[in-house]
Amino acid sequence: MFKLPRGTRDFTPEEMQKRRYVEEVMRSTFETFGYREVQTPSFETLELFTAKSGETIIEELYSFTDKGGRELALRPELTAPVIRFYVDKFQMEPKPIKLFYFGNCYRYDRPQKGRYREFKQAGCEIIGTDTAEAYAELIAMAYKILENTGVKNLELNIGNLTILSSIFDQFNISKDQQKYLTPLIDKSQFEDVFDALKDFGIKNEDASALTEILQTSNLKRIESFIKNDKAKKELAELKQIIALLEESFGIKNYQIKMSIVRGLDYYTGVVFEIEDSSLGAEKQLCGGGAYELITLFGGKKSPTAGFAIGFDRTILALETEKYRFPTPKLDVFVIPVNENLIKKSLEITQNLRKQGISVDVDLLRRGISKSLKYASSINAKKAVIVGPKELEKDAITVRDMNTGKQEIIKIKDIDHGIK
Amino acid sequence: MFKLPRGTRDFTPEEMQKRRYVEEVMRSTFETFGYREVQTPSFETLELFTAKSGETIIEELYSFTDKGGRELALRPELTAPVIRFYVDKFQMEPKPIKLFYFGNCYRYDRPQKGRYREFKQAGCEIIGTDTAEAYAELIAMAYKILENTGVKNLELNIGNLTILSSIFDQFNISKDQQKYLTPLIDKSQFEDVFDALKDFGIKNEDASALTEILQTSNLKRIESFIKNDKAKKELAELKQIIALLEESFGIKNYQIKMSIVRGLDYYTGVVFEIEDSSLGAEKQLCGGGAYELITLFGGKKSPTAGFAIGFDRTILALETEKYRFPTPKLDVFVIPVNENLIKKSLEITQNLRKQGISVDVDLLRRGISKSLKYASSINAKKAVIVGPKELEKDAITVRDMNTGKQEIIKIKDIDHGIK
Repeated sequence: MFKLPRGTRDFTPEEMQKRRYVEEVMRSTFETFGYREVQTPSFETLELFTAKSGETIIEELYSFTDKGGRELALRPELTAPVIRFYVDKFQMEPKPIKLFYFGNCYRYDRPQKGRYREFKQAGCEIIGTDTAEAYAELIAMAYKILENTGVKNLELNIGNLTILSSIFDQFNISKDQQKYLTPLIDKSQFEDVFDALKDFGIKNEDASALTEILQTSNLKRIESFIKNDKAKKELAELKQIIALLEESFGIKNYQIKMSIVRGLDYYTGVVFEIEDSSLGAEKQLCGGGAYELITLFGGKKSPTAGFAIGFDRTILALETEKYRFPTPKLDVFVIPVNENLIKKSLEITQNLRKQGISVDVDLLRRGISKSLKYASSINAKKAVIVGPKELEKDAITVRDMNTGKQEIIKIKDIDHGIK
Repeated sequence: MFKLPRGTRDFTPEEMQKRRYVEEVMRSTFETFGYREVQTPSFETLELFTAKSGETIIEELYSFTDKGGRELALRPELTAPVIRFYVDKFQMEPKPIKLFYFGNCYRYDRPQKGRYREFKQAGCEIIGTDTAEAYAELIAMAYKILENTGVKNLELNIGNLTILSSIFDQFNISKDQQKYLTPLIDKSQFEDVFDALKDFGIKNEDASALTEILQTSNLKRIESFIKNDKAKKELAELKQIIALLEESFGIKNYQIKMSIVRGLDYYTGVVFEIEDSSLGAEKQLCGGGAYELITLFGGKKSPTAGFAIGFDRTILALETEKYRFPTPKLDVFVIPVNENLIKKSLEITQNLRKQGISVDVDLLRRGISKSLKYASSINAKKAVIVGPKELEKDAITVRDMNTGKQEIIKIKDIDHGIK
C-alpha cells in the first residue's frame, strides 16, 4: 500500500549485520590511526553547498525552506559540513586535527545500479599539515580501511593536480581549454583529448607528450616532461609519499595516474582513488586528496586533505567477492513446556541475558514441537526446555539445535551447558 | 560565516564518544533480548505519516517534492516506516518478529531545551504476539536498556488504554468528551478534568471516582470501579504483566498510572513510560505500548507493540547525573627526533596499529619538545621517541605521559613497553 520512496532502501536484519560489521571495522581502523569521530546534521543551509560546488549543484539536491524562510538542503556530501564545523569549533585546537565520520548523504539522481538517492559515506579530514608523511598516512589509512573490511582486488591510483595543471600551463593550454578537457580525461577518453589538443592548435609532438603523461604510470617518463619548478617540487613530494607508502606502510600495488581529475575545483596537489576491479562501471570505492576549502568558509588558511569511502559500494564489493561475513546466531531459545512454567522460563532467560548471552523465549505459548521449529527458523544454537519434572530437581533440558543432542543440566550449571 | 541550521547540532569527538558508547550498550541489550536491527530511509512518502497521524502532522514535518511530483517528508518517528517495511517484507516470517532500530528523526518544532529539529531515537517493535509475557519482556527490555546505559532515578509508569476507555464508557462519557479530556489528563491537570466532568453533567460521585482512578497507583482501588468485562480481562492481564516484571525480571519500582494517554489514536491496551526524575520538564526517556497500525498500512491484522527511547535525552540524563562515561585515550604518540627518522617512525607506528593499538605520529616535523606538548594535549598515554642513538641498537625510548618516566626498549619488545 505505502511504497518506499524511489531510490531509497530498507535494510533487513541480515543486511544490517553486514553493515554494522563493516562500519565497526572502519571505525576501529580510523581510531588506530588517531582519528576522532564527529557528526553533523543531515541538512545544512543551501548556500553551504552552492558556495563549495556552484549553483549547478542545486538540481542534484533535496532542498526545502525553513520556517524562518531560509533555504536548506539534505547534504550531498560530508566535507563541506565538517569544514564548516572545523571553522566554527576547531580552529584554535593544536594541529593537526584528524576527524572521521559516517553519514547518510542524499542526491536527487536518477537511481541506477549501485547508486541510490540516500547513500552512506565514511570519510575523514586532516587539517593543519601538508607533509609527505601526512599524505602517505592518509592514503595508507584509506587503503587499510578497505583492506581490513575484507575487500580484495584493491587498486590504488595516485595523481597530482598541481603537476597536471603545471603541465597544462607549460603547453599553453588555457583555463577554458582545461575545463573542456577535464571530463574527457575523467572518462579516460584519451583519443578525444588528443583530437581536442590538435583542435586547440597544439603541435603534434606536444599533444602526444600530454596524452602520454595522462596514461603512463612511469614516474620517470612524467618527470622527463616537467619544466616548471612548482611541478618539480610537487613531484619530489610525490616520490616521498610513494617511498613512505612502500617502505613504512607496506603498500606496493599502487599506480601513478595523472588522469585523476576528481572533477572538483577545490582539490589541489595529491589526489588518489581506490577501485575494486571485481566491480563493473561503478568500481570506485574511495576518492580523496588535498584541497582548499577553509578560507572559502571564512576560516584561517590551513592545509587540508581527506577522503570519502562509498559505504554501500564497499558492501557491494564484499558481496561480489563472496566475502563470508560473520553471521552471529541467536545463542539460546528458551521453551516453557506449559503455561505454569512461563514465569520460571522468563527468569532463566533473564539470568542468561545478564551475562551478555542473546536469548529469546517462546512468547506465543505454542508448546515444545512448534517452539523447536521456531527456534530452528531463527537459527538458535541451543534450546533450553523448561519442563515440570526436570524443574523439580532444579534442572532443565539443553538441546543442541544442530545435532539434536539433549542433556539434562542443573540450572546453576546452565552457563556451561549452553556453551 | 556559514551557520548550523537552527535546531540542529554538530557533535564533537567527546560527544560522539558518549553517543557511540550509549548506542553500543543499547544495541547489545536489544540483541540479548533476541531483537534484530533494521533500517529504513530518512524520508518517506508524506502520505505514510498523514495516514498514521492525520493531516495536522504536516505542519510539523519537513516535506519536499520528488522529481516524480510525489510528496516526501523527513520521518518524524520510526514506527510508521518500520511497520511499512514489515507489511512489505516480513508478514510471512514465523512470529513473533522482533525488530529494533536507531535513526534520526526530524520535527519542524520551535527549538527548545532538550528538543531539537533533528534528534535520534532508539526503538523496537514486536509483532505477532499479545501474551502477558511478551508485554512484560518488552517493558523489562526498555527498562534494562536504560539501566544498562547507566541512567539512575528511573521511574516506570504503566497504564492501560483499554481499561481507561472502558471506564469512560461506563461513566457515559462520549468520544468527543474524551477527546476534550485527553490533553488535560496528559498534562496531569486533574482539577480541570474534574471540572470538565461536572460540566458534562457527570454526577459528583462519578467525577470523583474517575479522577481518583487517574491518580491512584493502587490497582485494587482501580479494580473496585471496573464493571465492564473487557476491562476486567485487561486488568487480569495487567496483573500478570506486573507479576512477571517483578518475579522474572526483578523490576519492582514501577507505578500503575491510568493517566498515561500517549496522545496517539493507534495505541490500545498496555502503555508505559519511563522517566528520569533528575531531569526537569522534559523528563520522559521512553514511551511505548501495544498498538494497531498494520491493517491501516494494508497488512494482515497481527498484534503489535513497541517503544521509542529518546537517545538525546538519555545522554542528557547521564550528563545530568554526572555519569562517568568511559574516556578512551590515545594509546601512543610516536615522535621522530629528526626528518631522517620519519620513515622508521611511520613503520613503528604502523606495526603497532596492526595490533589494534591507537597510535598517532608527529606529522608536522616539530621536534621532541613541541611533539610531547602535542601528545599531552591529545591525551596520549605513552610517547615513543625514535632517536638516532637508540635506533643504532634497534631500540626506542618509551615515555609514560602521566609520570614522565622514560625507558629505552628494544623495538622487538615494544608491545610490552607500551602496556
